[in-house]
Amino acid sequence: QEGSIFWFYFASHPVGNMPSLSVPPPKCLQKPLVVPHHHMFGPGPSNVPPRILEAGANPVIGHMHPEIFEIMSDIKSGIQYMFQTQNKMTLAVSGTGHTAMECAIFNTVEPGDSVLAAVNGIWGERAAEMAERIGAKVNTIVAPPGGYLTNTDIEKALSKHRPALFFLAHGESSTGVLHPLDGIGQLCHKYNCLFLVDSVASIGGTPLYMDQQEIDILYTGSQKVLNAPPGTAPISFSERACQKVFNRRTKPVSFFLDLNWLANYWGCDDKPTRVYHHTGPVTAFYSLRESLAVLAEEGLENSWERHETVAEYFHAGLESMGLKLFVKEKVRKPTLTRLPTVTTIVAPYGYDWKEIMSYIMKTHNLEISGGLGPSVGLVLRVGLMGCNSSKANVDMVLAALRDALKHCHRSKV
Amino acid sequence: QEGSIFWFYFASHPVGNMPSLSVPPPKCLQKPLVVPHHHMFGPGPSNVPPRILEAGANPVIGHMHPEIFEIMSDIKSGIQYMFQTQNKMTLAVSGTGHTAMECAIFNTVEPGDSVLAAVNGIWGERAAEMAERIGAKVNTIVAPPGGYLTNTDIEKALSKHRPALFFLAHGESSTGVLHPLDGIGQLCHKYNCLFLVDSVASIGGTPLYMDQQEIDILYTGSQKVLNAPPGTAPISFSERACQKVFNRRTKPVSFFLDLNWLANYWGCDDKPTRVYHHTGPVTAFYSLRESLAVLAEEGLENSWERHETVAEYFHAGLESMGLKLFVKEKVRKPTLTRLPTVTTIVAPYGYDWKEIMSYIMKTHNLEISGGLGPSVGLVLRVGLMGCNSSKANVDMVLAALRDALKHCHRSKV
Repeated sequence: QEGSIFWFYFASHPVGNMPSLSVPPPKCLQKPLVVPHHHMFGPGPSNVPPRILEAGANPVIGHMHPEIFEIMSDIKSGIQYMFQTQNKMTLAVSGTGHTAMECAIFNTVEPGDSVLAAVNGIWGERAAEMAERIGAKVNTIVAPPGGYLTNTDIEKALSKHRPALFFLAHGESSTGVLHPLDGIGQLCHKYNCLFLVDSVASIGGTPLYMDQQEIDILYTGSQKVLNAPPGTAPISFSERACQKVFNRRTKPVSFFLDLNWLANYWGCDDKPTRVYHHTGPVTAFYSLRESLAVLAEEGLENSWERHETVAEYFHAGLESMGLKLFVKEKVRKPTLTRLPTVTTIVAPYGYDWKEIMSYIMKTHNLEISGGLGPSVGLVLRVGLMGCNSSKANVDMVLAALRDALKHCHRSKV
Repeated sequence: QEGSIFWFYFASHPVGNMPSLSVPPPKCLQKPLVVPHHHMFGPGPSNVPPRILEAGANPVIGHMHPEIFEIMSDIKSGIQYMFQTQNKMTLAVSGTGHTAMECAIFNTVEPGDSVLAAVNGIWGERAAEMAERIGAKVNTIVAPPGGYLTNTDIEKALSKHRPALFFLAHGESSTGVLHPLDGIGQLCHKYNCLFLVDSVASIGGTPLYMDQQEIDILYTGSQKVLNAPPGTAPISFSERACQKVFNRRTKPVSFFLDLNWLANYWGCDDKPTRVYHHTGPVTAFYSLRESLAVLAEEGLENSWERHETVAEYFHAGLESMGLKLFVKEKVRKPTLTRLPTVTTIVAPYGYDWKEIMSYIMKTHNLEISGGLGPSVGLVLRVGLMGCNSSKANVDMVLAALRDALKHCHRSKV
């Protein structure tokens, strides 16, 4: 009713000789924004601590002000620490993990290049699709859901396809696999191939050493272990990757993601001045800086250890309830293949996994998730990342699962 | 010093048999984040009211939760109102204005298509570059900086090049020109061409009617008249544009910006369920919703009128100080060609424009900007957008300029 009066007011007071509005102000926007608080224990985004949310509510400054350049420089140092890299070409893309994935592929791949993607879940499929869209010749090596590839598998494929780029998801959050990385960078370089690693779901929660492991391009998202809101994506390019990027024959398809421009905006090139490229999401940069500061305060190794200890506690608790983990193999460190950040639980036999999810959200205000891609229908996924990775939260999840198994419908089959 | 002790601690307590860290935690992140408050009177980003900043500090929820789908639906209604369109295919891209520009071009243009770009400043140049990168045959029609194209110029070019897409910047913020729109959509359709309009700097501050003016693709950014932080970009596609997009022979180069996927994520297609595409920047969506609510509360026509009245007051004040406006022609409504949101002032004779900018920032804590692209060195740019568009702020800018002209160095020439 109010909306109609509002509308009548404007319709009867046109400015000058302008035509009147054909679309009235929407009534839904008269209601205040209401955002519930949930325990975000799915595979991401994860809960954002007040400290990081508040950082993002600081006043907006210009995307070319000296103050934002200093914040961006701090972010760069934070990413170098998180990634364990000295790479000069280290920055955050103004977008989510998918934007970083496209940034990596658009800049390092030219039409006609051969690309090899390891597919052990959804991320390898998406990387393959992105490379295909820009005209690469794409081959895949597929691991069964919940499994991983051996270095022998990988070397065989590198030797057969001679790709310019090899993609691998370190933390395959759709299946819960932490893919071993050791020796793969060295294999890629033996075959003159760049090594691209997606660490969106893993980094910060488990050891990763970009330089020592000879990873050429590495990226992540802000909303996982970092506990910042989604919207920025750290990425880094090795010297070897830059050699390829800056000696291309063709321009990358995207102006927005062209590393020549991004490098200048982030002060990663040697040019004395920065040229306007795009308007960086400055408030998202504040949150990202804060989240990197939190990680640096705790210390990477402490964070890794905490995630591993909590995951082991969680996995033992699940097994003692009679639930099964989707990733079967349990090898000792350093070749642990269960992600400590995202756990895949075999969908409990005789139950509807959707009902379990909904029950837990409704009754315990707690998000857990179903499968994704090849694991849809097969698993429940629980993410305990960054500040969410604690034994107290494990206890909360285990209690919720126990309660769900008691109250959800179970078929007689 | 603290940093070193910190580092020593970790180096001496490696977890298991992992190699020690080669990159220590950066000292710069031990300092708290400090963000100054400036009057953001450049061409954007503009100041964000506390109400909108606070909306963005709400807790993170999932990118596929029913609550976020409701917020996205509200955003969609708000954009339809702001754009004056009934288009079902209306959403916000997870990125800045440049992302929306690429989203528009990537989806509507196929390799080999002919594209025509009106260049009357930097935006036309960038659109042309984006289309070239994906293999379009690009032609441009160029207006002199500060000028604009007539419908006769445009029809001649349409008839000559027979483009599939015509790009025009409505608010050319680099030169301060508000380009007339009337009749151009109809001309494009006469030549079977889609009409793409960049309204990043103009919409909400001056009349624009997407449907009535037969615009096929329209986009803007969150950080201008809307006064939200940069990071989301409203966009809308007409039925005619969708016909082209959904009957392409090739896939768009970007998976992230593929309208098939975005349409599903935003509930703009007729599919019963939404499939995971990417992790939307949920907190940026909160701010965007709030900014659209602010606009709906004031009412579009009131907002247009306020921006125009304030701009006229500003322009009169500048002229009474002896300053000249870069956009010479001053025609009466409805063909006003000076942007009411971003004003370009001819760089005062005998002064160094950079010194004026710095002086005003240092002394008055107020951002104004130099030229961009074709206007570099020629102008100063002042943006008064959204909540910043008020006579009080005009008085503040005029006082700062008066002060700068008194205190900055003036050559004897």
